[in-house]
Amino acid sequence: MNKPAIVDDLKPLFQPNSVAVIGASNDISKWGFSTFSSIKSLYKGELYAVNNKSSEVLGYPAYSSVIDIPSQVDLAVIVVPAEYVADIMSDCVKKGVKASVIISAGFAEIGEKGKIMQNKVLETAKKGNIRIVGPNCMGMWSAAADLPAFMFPMTIKKGPLGLISQGGNIGGAIVADAVARGIGFQQYVSCGCTADIQMEDYIEYLGNDDSVKIILVYIEGLNDGSRFIKKVSRVTRKKPVLALKPGKTEAAAHAITTHSGSMSGTDSVYEAAFKKAGVLRVESSVEMLDVAIALLVQPLPKGPNVVITTPGGSYGVMCADACALRGLNVIDLPPAIMEVFNSMFPSRWSHGNPVDPAGDRDIIQYLRAPELLLRRPEVDAIIFMGFGSFSAISTVFASGSQNWDLSKYFDGIEDMAKIVIKIIDSGDKNKMKVLIQNLLSAALGKILATKKSELSDFSELIADALTAERMMQRSFFKNLRNMFYTASIGQIHKIKINDISQLMEPIIDALIERWVEKYDKPVITTTFTEGTSRLSEGGHFPYPNSDQASAVLAKLLEYHRYLETVSES
Amino acid sequence: MNKPAIVDDLKPLFQPNSVAVIGASNDISKWGFSTFSSIKSLYKGELYAVNNKSSEVLGYPAYSSVIDIPSQVDLAVIVVPAEYVADIMSDCVKKGVKASVIISAGFAEIGEKGKIMQNKVLETAKKGNIRIVGPNCMGMWSAAADLPAFMFPMTIKKGPLGLISQGGNIGGAIVADAVARGIGFQQYVSCGCTADIQMEDYIEYLGNDDSVKIILVYIEGLNDGSRFIKKVSRVTRKKPVLALKPGKTEAAAHAITTHSGSMSGTDSVYEAAFKKAGVLRVESSVEMLDVAIALLVQPLPKGPNVVITTPGGSYGVMCADACALRGLNVIDLPPAIMEVFNSMFPSRWSHGNPVDPAGDRDIIQYLRAPELLLRRPEVDAIIFMGFGSFSAISTVFASGSQNWDLSKYFDGIEDMAKIVIKIIDSGDKNKMKVLIQNLLSAALGKILATKKSELSDFSELIADALTAERMMQRSFFKNLRNMFYTASIGQIHKIKINDISQLMEPIIDALIERWVEKYDKPVITTTFTEGTSRLSEGGHFPYPNSDQASAVLAKLLEYHRYLETVSES
Repeated sequence: MNKPAIVDDLKPLFQPNSVAVIGASNDISKWGFSTFSSIKSLYKGELYAVNNKSSEVLGYPAYSSVIDIPSQVDLAVIVVPAEYVADIMSDCVKKGVKASVIISAGFAEIGEKGKIMQNKVLETAKKGNIRIVGPNCMGMWSAAADLPAFMFPMTIKKGPLGLISQGGNIGGAIVADAVARGIGFQQYVSCGCTADIQMEDYIEYLGNDDSVKIILVYIEGLNDGSRFIKKVSRVTRKKPVLALKPGKTEAAAHAITTHSGSMSGTDSVYEAAFKKAGVLRVESSVEMLDVAIALLVQPLPKGPNVVITTPGGSYGVMCADACALRGLNVIDLPPAIMEVFNSMFPSRWSHGNPVDPAGDRDIIQYLRAPELLLRRPEVDAIIFMGFGSFSAISTVFASGSQNWDLSKYFDGIEDMAKIVIKIIDSGDKNKMKVLIQNLLSAALGKILATKKSELSDFSELIADALTAERMMQRSFFKNLRNMFYTASIGQIHKIKINDISQLMEPIIDALIERWVEKYDKPVITTTFTEGTSRLSEGGHFPYPNSDQASAVLAKLLEYHRYLETVSES
Repeated sequence: MNKPAIVDDLKPLFQPNSVAVIGASNDISKWGFSTFSSIKSLYKGELYAVNNKSSEVLGYPAYSSVIDIPSQVDLAVIVVPAEYVADIMSDCVKKGVKASVIISAGFAEIGEKGKIMQNKVLETAKKGNIRIVGPNCMGMWSAAADLPAFMFPMTIKKGPLGLISQGGNIGGAIVADAVARGIGFQQYVSCGCTADIQMEDYIEYLGNDDSVKIILVYIEGLNDGSRFIKKVSRVTRKKPVLALKPGKTEAAAHAITTHSGSMSGTDSVYEAAFKKAGVLRVESSVEMLDVAIALLVQPLPKGPNVVITTPGGSYGVMCADACALRGLNVIDLPPAIMEVFNSMFPSRWSHGNPVDPAGDRDIIQYLRAPELLLRRPEVDAIIFMGFGSFSAISTVFASGSQNWDLSKYFDGIEDMAKIVIKIIDSGDKNKMKVLIQNLLSAALGKILATKKSELSDFSELIADALTAERMMQRSFFKNLRNMFYTASIGQIHKIKINDISQLMEPIIDALIERWVEKYDKPVITTTFTEGTSRLSEGGHFPYPNSDQASAVLAKLLEYHRYLETVSES
């Protein structure tokens, strides 16, 4: 397929060699102050300040017009009152500027008068082929250029997402939340009134940037629905596009007109357009990030059949409801699996899906269940509940901490510790595998009194997962080594039960990675408490509750079905 | 009204003078280990261990039967395998035990065999009038007795909530999330199979405990719907009851039977019962806490008319949708208000509801708007967006931190600081009021260049709010004093822009308290980023997004309307 024209068109926007801030200011009460501050904090290309009253802005020489700048200007960031923008744009045309970001507000969104001004600016820009982001926007970020061209400094990081937002505030919130979850952006554009470059243009550009894995859009209104469908459906075959689109009610539709100057239109029209274009519509910014992260780290389910495993019955009940309400199929367990579980779990286990060991104190059995389920062709996906609560298990044991003495469980720990350290330092995969198996057998056998036969099975699985190439590079072995170093110098009393349970999470993490890789089926996990989860070291993300987990799984299935339809046609 | 019988019946459960743990154990792999550990960590009454194999448990003498305990036992916590519970209960009857918590699982939830065992236990207990929590539960908390009778140690704190849950895991998650938000419980009971004491019995008891302000219940199934309606509707006239009830789908109904042994029944029957009893049904544990907190700190709205104020257009759009979808009325602004806002905000403001100053850099105008709106009879409630982001404003200014020098704004700060400290130390309310006014005028006038006439209005309002009795006892003045102390000893350079913006949040907090008190209308606030918010020092709680905020407001309105109906009848 040929490269679409937009790829070259927007290059000066996303990879400018030089940037001028028109309206840059020393006055702390002006947006020109914070905009210039934001860009200069990171951008390494040529940066110029334009201010017709000062000769210097924040330590940079200031030019009274963009025309006076002695070198080429690729991108102009304009942050002056709306009524001056047309003249500024005229200067930009004279100067040969290639692209612009108009932060200034007071255009289409304020009504007829603003609309006239906006058209004037557009006409002028067209004469010089200057593409426009905005007006009435918060600016943009391009990782390729290390360019945070925002109206005030924002925390952002590089990563596989691309975000185009007709709302600067909601866009900023999505960026902040994503960064808090441990994930970053290749581009983020607050596109404001989308006077020139349209949503579908941005999406087409991002679709052709291989460093962008998932495209996120916040849409208030589209100018040309069929153009959107045509361009975007080419992208959604290659990578997912997630859309957040308010305006279901009259109240919001009205607010949209005064905000971005868009005509929101009937919601059902958008719903149909998204369906046609293969765009996945989400209901909130939280769901947007939830689904985006799953698309990055999970395979798509091949069908609707889900099994829920839960360390607590009520979680399972809530999750079964959440799944069924979203069209997922909470299947009956195959009889063969029922038999295996009957022999594994206490007789009071749930005897069905959700799989609930009903307070079995032996965590190993719970961790064995997903592997057995994933092997079955009837199972398309698993929701594995309680991720993260395994480290909370320490609380259970810590309750008797005054009686807790590791040396009680491990005789001659000092000499053993020296051997352990040697093995870890050797980096010999096979030796490390045996080491892990032995350590697990010792720890679990002595502490949890797990049956020997089940232990060896399980220990092998874990040892396999932990000695995968990628795990060797993570912090698990470093932490393990530190612990044994403490033991080797006779300070075993300094090792806390917490240190040990902190090793649990990377183990579960490695296990899930292993399952996903081996069976090519999604394993969605949940914690049970509020608060922002972070991507684990292994790239795994636990959702805070079953609503979010099941919504994610339903969206993955929706995308799988869409891809099936287009591959057939 | 007479005290219902349940108040005396459940007194030995919630206020026992002595507790025996039957099945207490030294074995870390047994629930009897962690249950005993949990209780002994806090309970100050007489505590006994019963274990027929050891003579000592975790430092306590152990009795081989409850009968052998030399003193009276009010409450027995039973944590032995299901098949022994009937015999244990028989011993309890002989001993004259008054109440019991049966943690053991393997009763009604496992089917016919378990059901028979459960009935046997019930019959036996009845002979001695022993009331039963459970079986198949995680235990309970009573603040009145400092009693954490859980199967493992949990973090819980005292507070105005009461929680009864047919799921121990979901109950534990609600407790953990509530504590993280800064709010605690008078009682929390994981009631398991509810073989004896029914949901409506607990609710009736909590309804009669004045220290409980809000009752939360997680219900999987009720045994007698009309008894529930009769008893609970008496409670909901006095205080709110919030219910989380899964089982909308076949998949969940099935899971419920194997979990708590309940028959879930048709969802529409529950919906009708809740409506009739005045129970507010919520959709998730997050919504449950969201609404509970609002009921604690906000008045009920008298009608559906809401105005949204927002520092960003897209937030407003999302919020208008969220409100309208929940039946709230996003009203047109009264013409008189339009006029005032036209003179206050830049001409690009949204000119409607949501009220969006569209990037006005003068935050004062945004903070003046709610007061003007609350005065209007057309306005029943306000959603005030962006709480918390005011301290983020520091980022905007901090961007020019190298040029930031406080002494530039304040001459002779050292002498002034000494006077400020004297005034704060005097505790003289009137002097402090004048002080606040002057400080604000100086700070805002010089930094934000706010107009003088507006400043005096606004400064007076803030000064009023800050010198309310309760504010004098909070940390605001302590922090202010510390800041000026630093200035008084010639170290003004040590004061960071962040120190100043951290004073912002208590100011907004005080302002909102003032508005709520003055106008008796709810002012619901939102931040815009994920993560758990905490109750502020002033008891104010900002929701992370407009979905949550509007859901809360809709529930408050639902409760107001219910109370209107019952007061008419």
